[in-house]
Amino acid sequence: MPKEFRDLLRAELRDGRFRMVDVDPGSTPGLKKRKRAKKEMEAAQAVVFNLQERLFAENKRSLLIVLQAMDTAGKDGTITHVMGHLNPQGVRITTFKAPTPEEKRHGFLWRIRRNLPDPGVIGIFNRSQYEDVLVARVHALADLKVIERRYDLINRFEKEVVRKGTKIIKLCLHISYAEQRQRLLDRLRNPDKQWKFKEHDIDERAYWDDYMSAYGIAITRCSTPWAPWYVIPANDKDYRNWAVSKILTETLDEMDPQYPRPKLNVPRLVKRLKD
Amino acid sequence: MPKEFRDLLRAELRDGRFRMVDVDPGSTPGLKKRKRAKKEMEAAQAVVFNLQERLFAENKRSLLIVLQAMDTAGKDGTITHVMGHLNPQGVRITTFKAPTPEEKRHGFLWRIRRNLPDPGVIGIFNRSQYEDVLVARVHALADLKVIERRYDLINRFEKEVVRKGTKIIKLCLHISYAEQRQRLLDRLRNPDKQWKFKEHDIDERAYWDDYMSAYGIAITRCSTPWAPWYVIPANDKDYRNWAVSKILTETLDEMDPQYPRPKLNVPRLVKRLKD
Repeated sequence: MPKEFRDLLRAELRDGRFRMVDVDPGSTPGLKKRKRAKKEMEAAQAVVFNLQERLFAENKRSLLIVLQAMDTAGKDGTITHVMGHLNPQGVRITTFKAPTPEEKRHGFLWRIRRNLPDPGVIGIFNRSQYEDVLVARVHALADLKVIERRYDLINRFEKEVVRKGTKIIKLCLHISYAEQRQRLLDRLRNPDKQWKFKEHDIDERAYWDDYMSAYGIAITRCSTPWAPWYVIPANDKDYRNWAVSKILTETLDEMDPQYPRPKLNVPRLVKRLKD
Repeated sequence: MPKEFRDLLRAELRDGRFRMVDVDPGSTPGLKKRKRAKKEMEAAQAVVFNLQERLFAENKRSLLIVLQAMDTAGKDGTITHVMGHLNPQGVRITTFKAPTPEEKRHGFLWRIRRNLPDPGVIGIFNRSQYEDVLVARVHALADLKVIERRYDLINRFEKEVVRKGTKIIKLCLHISYAEQRQRLLDRLRNPDKQWKFKEHDIDERAYWDDYMSAYGIAITRCSTPWAPWYVIPANDKDYRNWAVSKILTETLDEMDPQYPRPKLNVPRLVKRLKD
């Protein structure tokens, strides 16, 4: 089998673990001409569009895209620029925020299960089950023992989801500490972007290394054959969109969804349409 | 005030009533060069995109787009090609099908209310409250007295929704009987489109004139200053998308949503971002 693009970005363990520092957020693996990223992505949209239509028409399997990233790394931008061009009726986006009181009364996977995509649909999780091993770990929101158990619960959960016909890809958008600073400064200084600014994002920056460590552990523990992690260098937005678009295309292509071929008596039906 | 494009397509009563036959489904009002429709629509997308971002950022008002049409007239295509390019996180699409048993236990507006867009969001109704005065009238699914009362209930409901900060535009995509035949034949003969074909659509064609009459009555009774109907000639798909895109732009432009200007102590915050 020829090596595919996505293999370049699939998280690989070295000596049994994955470390975020091993991926350079400013790199652009697989992209030959940086200037062509945008054009190539736009050209790929027709292909993805057709694959999505086939998935929707087939109405059997689904695709779930899990998006995780530090603040300002581009989750929203990726959804808009890469997935914004799909047929919106076949897409279901769920944004997971801090759990509500109701959500807290249930296990951490409860709200996840309720938002899985229906057959034919591409589900996008803007944050996900991984918050419960990322922010929860960094801020000790649960006992370490509880958190340790969650990695296995997530793996088992994802295996069950895959077995029921939903393909899962997990994308971590990776920016550098310096790049985040630039983006926060940009939000602060541009009056049209100030509405996006939250001082809380600066507070969280103090925990950057802890987050990188928590991501490393999560990706180490939850990189499974059935639900791989891809770590996308995301300092360059055009590269990020291009790369996500390619992973999406290759994944749907591999699924190879098929238009149903209903048994129709075409001549009889054409006759019924005589006028 | 200069006349706007959308005024050309706003349903106008003549002698106290609106008739579908008064709109030619093959016409292209306001479009100077047919060949440029697609290009012009693509160019307008950046404008709509920015207006939507402002609406989302403002997070106060909403826009509700009601889409009604005969089968194959292009509700799905319009959603994909015109609204598919918005930021999907600020869009909520609801497809109303035949009411479920639970929905039937409530008034016909119950399921509508539950799916109104949140502040900042553009809601799209793929079919709507109008089904209950269209298909219900054509197939006598309710007493005529009950249906007669619904027009006023809809008007009052829409007025309340508008008062609470949601702008409403209602779009009727209008194709001809002959054009529908062509599209159904196309679905039948193209193996990749057969999954969209439903024999029920041929059954419904027999009621074409009844539907046109029911649309005429609904538009006559529910064309209000607060929630206007636009009837879009839709035989030509490029024109249809172009026209809907222009109405959307003009409507959002009139709403003139504003980025919030939060009170930030920028120098202090920049200092906090020293590294």
